[in-house]
Amino acid sequence: MESPAPEVAGPAAPRRRGRPARPVLSRGKITTAALAVIGRAGYDGLTMAALARELETAPSALYNHVKSKDEVLNWVQDDVNDTIDTTAFGRDPWDLALMRWAHSYRDAFARHSPLIPVIAVLPITGAPHSLAMYERVAGGLAAGGWPEDMVVDVIVAVESFVLGSAMDVAAPEWIFDVGDQRDLAPTFADAVAARPARGPAAADSAFSLGLNALVAGLRGTLAAVRATRG
Amino acid sequence: MESPAPEVAGPAAPRRRGRPARPVLSRGKITTAALAVIGRAGYDGLTMAALARELETAPSALYNHVKSKDEVLNWVQDDVNDTIDTTAFGRDPWDLALMRWAHSYRDAFARHSPLIPVIAVLPITGAPHSLAMYERVAGGLAAGGWPEDMVVDVIVAVESFVLGSAMDVAAPEWIFDVGDQRDLAPTFADAVAARPARGPAAADSAFSLGLNALVAGLRGTLAAVRATRG
Repeated sequence: MESPAPEVAGPAAPRRRGRPARPVLSRGKITTAALAVIGRAGYDGLTMAALARELETAPSALYNHVKSKDEVLNWVQDDVNDTIDTTAFGRDPWDLALMRWAHSYRDAFARHSPLIPVIAVLPITGAPHSLAMYERVAGGLAAGGWPEDMVVDVIVAVESFVLGSAMDVAAPEWIFDVGDQRDLAPTFADAVAARPARGPAAADSAFSLGLNALVAGLRGTLAAVRATRG
Repeated sequence: MESPAPEVAGPAAPRRRGRPARPVLSRGKITTAALAVIGRAGYDGLTMAALARELETAPSALYNHVKSKDEVLNWVQDDVNDTIDTTAFGRDPWDLALMRWAHSYRDAFARHSPLIPVIAVLPITGAPHSLAMYERVAGGLAAGGWPEDMVVDVIVAVESFVLGSAMDVAAPEWIFDVGDQRDLAPTFADAVAARPARGPAAADSAFSLGLNALVAGLRGTLAAVRATRG
């Protein structure tokens, strides 16, 4: 077994001088390496052993920095969530801010599609950037007049649409190809052929249609709730 | 290596009499076994070797019936899609039919959550039940007045919401637990605590809120499109 990579060249390690041969592990380096492994081998391919190989270190050294695969995933989620734009909350009306957030959120996870099913069920406990993101969204919705007891349902509904749409970005262009069974679905086949956009532009088009409708619908819901609750 | 399981006790197999020792493979048996493997080991755990073990047969026998893992997944998708309720299309107004379809679709995939990211990007070519489902939905939308070139975007938008919501059903109850970092997200923590429902009922509540809003928004979109296009 290799010895752990040194973190501090203190008096206990007089043999080593200058830069250590292997880079010192950090949360940032571990997160970047985990994203590389997931991108290549999928979520199931991310093991502590595979992550240690990616970092060119021993598993024992890795365990000095992070206690489990779940903690690594928590860091990865937090890193990706930190790239999501929440700046419109508290500045723009809630509905416009929600749309800007949803666009940025979809783009962030479309770049990391193997993460989507993992992130969808991963607790955010201990993830400071994720907590900061949800705080801004919740604050923007509350300021926009949403009752406190509905705020999380609004967030979850928009997130569900965003994560489903982020998966759709990775769909192949021929996903709706009826092949030689056109007779089973003639109306559908014609509608597929009539779709103006192809590939990523088609995904963008469906996402915009759905997001505009969802947010317009939420505006109506909020108006109805406020009228009812007074 | 074991010999392939016999399909037909024809003259070429005079040694065998009566029922074969192992059940004859069929599309239905292979699909059921594939769902069992995916449920236990995830999508990455579904290999032709694992599927053959589940069916207590040799890989060579399995390959006599299905040519690849992708074909197995196509069958699995088609089997699950066959359970989705499309009966309201052509009977009820498009918006009500869409909601009924979305509820049934979410329930079907919530029961098979490891399939969701796979199905989201899997072509439907050669899947007769899937084609029949899309034909009914496309026909219902067209009959409701949706222009042909928008039908697939409507379907994709609703599917994205449905698949994201089906993932949320599997989320743990403590997914939004702020832990000891309440100071980072006080508004959000209060909103989480104020959520009336917990667990699966919370997922249902967010899904209903979002679906009602999405479909209400789509009603507005259709009215605007018809007014614009004349």
